[in-house]
Amino acid sequence: MSTIKNIGVLTSGGDSPGMNAAIRAVVRASLYHNLKVTGVLRGYEGLIHADFMPMDGKSVANIIQRGGTILKTARSDAFRTKEGRELAHKNLVDSDIDALVVIGGDGTFTGADLFSREFNFPVIGLPGTIDNDLEGTDFTIGYDTAINTVVNAVDKIRDTAESHDRLFIVEVMGRDSGLIALRSGIGVGAEAIMIPEAKIGVEDVVVRLENGRKDKASKIIIVAEGDEAGGAYNVGEALKDRFPSYDIRISVLGHIQRGGKPSCMDRVLASRLGVAAVEGLLAGKTDVMAGQVNREIVFTPFSHAIKHIDAEKITPAWLRLVEILSL
Amino acid sequence: MSTIKNIGVLTSGGDSPGMNAAIRAVVRASLYHNLKVTGVLRGYEGLIHADFMPMDGKSVANIIQRGGTILKTARSDAFRTKEGRELAHKNLVDSDIDALVVIGGDGTFTGADLFSREFNFPVIGLPGTIDNDLEGTDFTIGYDTAINTVVNAVDKIRDTAESHDRLFIVEVMGRDSGLIALRSGIGVGAEAIMIPEAKIGVEDVVVRLENGRKDKASKIIIVAEGDEAGGAYNVGEALKDRFPSYDIRISVLGHIQRGGKPSCMDRVLASRLGVAAVEGLLAGKTDVMAGQVNREIVFTPFSHAIKHIDAEKITPAWLRLVEILSL
Amino acid sequence: MSTIKNIGVLTSGGDSPGMNAAIRAVVRASLYHNLKVTGVLRGYEGLIHADFMPMDGKSVANIIQRGGTILKTARSDAFRTKEGRELAHKNLVDSDIDALVVIGGDGTFTGADLFSREFNFPVIGLPGTIDNDLEGTDFTIGYDTAINTVVNAVDKIRDTAESHDRLFIVEVMGRDSGLIALRSGIGVGAEAIMIPEAKIGVEDVVVRLENGRKDKASKIIIVAEGDEAGGAYNVGEALKDRFPSYDIRISVLGHIQRGGKPSCMDRVLASRLGVAAVEGLLAGKTDVMAGQVNREIVFTPFSHAIKHIDAEKITPAWLRLVEILSL
Amino acid sequence: MSTIKNIGVLTSGGDSPGMNAAIRAVVRASLYHNLKVTGVLRGYEGLIHADFMPMDGKSVANIIQRGGTILKTARSDAFRTKEGRELAHKNLVDSDIDALVVIGGDGTFTGADLFSREFNFPVIGLPGTIDNDLEGTDFTIGYDTAINTVVNAVDKIRDTAESHDRLFIVEVMGRDSGLIALRSGIGVGAEAIMIPEAKIGVEDVVVRLENGRKDKASKIIIVAEGDEAGGAYNVGEALKDRFPSYDIRISVLGHIQRGGKPSCMDRVLASRLGVAAVEGLLAGKTDVMAGQVNREIVFTPFSHAIKHIDAEKITPAWLRLVEILSL
Repeated sequence: MSTIKNIGVLTSGGDSPGMNAAIRAVVRASLYHNLKVTGVLRGYEGLIHADFMPMDGKSVANIIQRGGTILKTARSDAFRTKEGRELAHKNLVDSDIDALVVIGGDGTFTGADLFSREFNFPVIGLPGTIDNDLEGTDFTIGYDTAINTVVNAVDKIRDTAESHDRLFIVEVMGRDSGLIALRSGIGVGAEAIMIPEAKIGVEDVVVRLENGRKDKASKIIIVAEGDEAGGAYNVGEALKDRFPSYDIRISVLGHIQRGGKPSCMDRVLASRLGVAAVEGLLAGKTDVMAGQVNREIVFTPFSHAIKHIDAEKITPAWLRLVEILSL
Repeated sequence: MSTIKNIGVLTSGGDSPGMNAAIRAVVRASLYHNLKVTGVLRGYEGLIHADFMPMDGKSVANIIQRGGTILKTARSDAFRTKEGRELAHKNLVDSDIDALVVIGGDGTFTGADLFSREFNFPVIGLPGTIDNDLEGTDFTIGYDTAINTVVNAVDKIRDTAESHDRLFIVEVMGRDSGLIALRSGIGVGAEAIMIPEAKIGVEDVVVRLENGRKDKASKIIIVAEGDEAGGAYNVGEALKDRFPSYDIRISVLGHIQRGGKPSCMDRVLASRLGVAAVEGLLAGKTDVMAGQVNREIVFTPFSHAIKHIDAEKITPAWLRLVEILSL
Repeated sequence: MSTIKNIGVLTSGGDSPGMNAAIRAVVRASLYHNLKVTGVLRGYEGLIHADFMPMDGKSVANIIQRGGTILKTARSDAFRTKEGRELAHKNLVDSDIDALVVIGGDGTFTGADLFSREFNFPVIGLPGTIDNDLEGTDFTIGYDTAINTVVNAVDKIRDTAESHDRLFIVEVMGRDSGLIALRSGIGVGAEAIMIPEAKIGVEDVVVRLENGRKDKASKIIIVAEGDEAGGAYNVGEALKDRFPSYDIRISVLGHIQRGGKPSCMDRVLASRLGVAAVEGLLAGKTDVMAGQVNREIVFTPFSHAIKHIDAEKITPAWLRLVEILSL
Repeated sequence: MSTIKNIGVLTSGGDSPGMNAAIRAVVRASLYHNLKVTGVLRGYEGLIHADFMPMDGKSVANIIQRGGTILKTARSDAFRTKEGRELAHKNLVDSDIDALVVIGGDGTFTGADLFSREFNFPVIGLPGTIDNDLEGTDFTIGYDTAINTVVNAVDKIRDTAESHDRLFIVEVMGRDSGLIALRSGIGVGAEAIMIPEAKIGVEDVVVRLENGRKDKASKIIIVAEGDEAGGAYNVGEALKDRFPSYDIRISVLGHIQRGGKPSCMDRVLASRLGVAAVEGLLAGKTDVMAGQVNREIVFTPFSHAIKHIDAEKITPAWLRLVEILSL
């Protein structure tokens, strides 16, 4: 039987929609199992500063639909040092917190991996990032909301593109990953999608535009921020040179992609994984991320979860799909 | 090599968001494979009346984001008769249409199953229904949009419930299936979910309310339209009797659940399955539904797809999740 | 110079989107003028029970975008009695609250009118109701959001109506007033609008449908809940009798119309009126509602504000507009 | 009695949400008065190229909710020349079009003014621009939708700003006008608003930030694209120098502000003004814009409508409101 009596929960790294739903699930699952639960403010910074607050069912009332994170998030330089982590551990022990659920992305898990091994401290991670760039889960919490935000924004851009017969180059988030670009690009019916994994250069886009249907009123090209072609502005310059008659506009969607009410899918995923994290800790698991693969809960070691294998997720079949649909 | 040269596409039964994205994908995949593609209006009624229109890339421009179906849909009594189907077959042959993609739910597939076997006519189905009640696909086209529509509507209801400390009973669609209720109920943080598969009666809800946290400002109960307790109004009456002090309101969400812009997930699913249907026909498949299971395309015989196995999808683990989260 | 040092603020009656924005403005305007400000919970019930809480800038941080009311609302039987109001007055005096801003509709203002005159207590009202049925302001706080909610819901219904060639009868809120029905009906392009002020009966709708364009794929009729024809279900029955070939569906939008994020217009109106209420109290005004007429702030005596003059707002010119647009 | 028998309608300049609703109203009002109505494609370019299409009730079915313009829009160099306008006039006469409704902004009206006087040709304008920078109407068609788009986008940004305790500088559209920035800035609860009319420089913002509440978790500064401080990036640089400890991010909202479904208010305004334009032409009016001032229809000479008097609309009272609310 588990000796865990008090679970700490924190959010770290870039925020993503659904983090609040995950916090809520961690809190309620802890209560269900008669555990105490403690909120840690501002990610690992809160461990360093013992910024703790006890939580109950009411603490998480009416937050499932809120974007952002009520526990706040921050990056912590101190936690990257041995001294910082020792202080964090001391603070946890002093406050009788015996286990942690950390919600975030690869940076968060790198820290968690180190910490849990250094101090033999039980930690389970939840994949909270819009980028969907973690191994061990089909989708990360926030990804579905982010691609819907992109799709809704580009639908608006399509209205004005259609009215003016314009070509729009839209840059979306995703850091090194093209997964946001890929799905949202299919979702908006993009004429081309430029993602780091696919090595589709400006020349390929030029060919596609030259060979494409001539009666298309508008064209949308989605560019992942991590793409080699260097972002929407560079792509725009290159295309202007090649198609001087085109009316080309650029839009960088920016931080709207991180916020907003989580989609139903993100709320359900966060809820399910939050419960799984608590029950995983009680079952003795540690140093792992709780994810969902093929509708089943799986636990993946942090060291494996943070390997970027997006290039594998972005199969040639997906790229062919984009090509077929853009006819 | 396939002898198919002209694919007909139709939508049938209740409409669902993403049907247009599916039509678009069928059209573009046909063009990609140098096939003709013909739109059939008003489902099987269009086969009876030879209501056909040739389609090209432009026919489906700028529809991926539209709710409803540009091909329209209807129920057809004539197609249920042998004479009707013979006429339909004659009309297809006369117009040189050699294969069909039918987009709809179980009624649609029952007809397609019969038709394809009677006339040895190639037919592939796409799961277009908000109910998610088909076997052979993790999700149907329209389900994700519908649960997001429910979640957004109930979020609004939660605002007013919180302001007044009210209990709301919200009835959602799904016919015999509780799948819309289950996911949207988790998504809105419902205090209880009443679905036909779970045999949760009014008495269970009474117990849950009596044992629940007393400081909850508002309560939301989601009732599936197919629930045995007989709909939101009956549940409301029963609860008013038991909790006379509660301020109870009823809301039947109704047809808003069928419309609206499809979510990104529904657009991507519809796009992928639409291409798969065309390529399935070219590969000689018939009398099957194209679906997505564990991220892979699978083809399931119509006769199997229409078996309702929602009760298996709604596992005890899901019901336990609802209970934990409502603490 | 005013002797007011501590302003109480409450919300009462049915909630409406923008009430939080109004509360925020009252709080910040009070701080700007170096006044204390006290939140009263649950409307007049909070006065009876001395349910008071001091507020500062932080109390209203990040609420401008929230539906509902953080101060909650309730109906109070006690406040309708002389004894109740005496207790309320005593509680206010005991807590050194010298003036009130009450946010609500006609019931709220009827109580405020009585209270301010009985005890010579300074009270200013803000029009917080989705119904827009108050005199002394072009728009009430919440109306614009509500009509947008209706329009977005009926847009979804139009998708499915178009797909099935259906006639939908949609019932919207508004109590005795047809103002929500009128504007939202124009906004959705309704074929007919039935509102209490216009005496458009089922027979008129029948005539309009018989004379209308025959090639219309779908038809939407908006019925105000207060309409004499008795609600959407009665209208539906009558039309089914007259047009047995029509595929008629009913949708009662219900409480989604009260919630949701306020529109920009409602936020700006609430912000402006909230400041005006505080500055009106400081200028010695009382027993009045602060409203906006022709872009100017005006103060209207409660007794006048609650006179229902919707029939005057709904001029023949508006009804003619509906007729022209439905061609 | 009017001799007008065939009204042409076009959209010109930047598109704005609600243009389709305006086109629909022009078409239906023409039909109501037994006039022919002809759509002109791509603004004044369509006059030059005789790109005309007859329209009927069905042409404008189901477009009231669509962003953009089904008639498309473009800028026309040819129409700026005398020869171009002569050709345009000849094409209109050849096609028996006797009057025009032009929907657009100041550039559109400058052309219309010239054309109507040169050829004594009846032209009425409708204010279709998101900028709200025209005299003779309280609001332009598209403005309300645009400010709601901004507010919804910045609400998302607020989520992430709150989670990270960040300062965001958000640049919004409006060309020379700060009206979008002003209203949306109030709507999002901005800490400061920088608009060309107000001469609020970076120094003023620095002072406001230094004097502001220290416990604010996040800060949003709205910058109008026409502001003297030179756009969000320049403001960002200046603030980073002054507040090196701040975590500052920039977001330029861009073209999403032009598209999207029109708000109810924009649909109603467009519908009303569209009818007014047709009836104005029949009443012999020309060389004027139809607008709505204090809820009444007014006709303003083009030469007056295009005078930019935003600085008058942005009164000190509005700026004071921003200051009070940001406490």
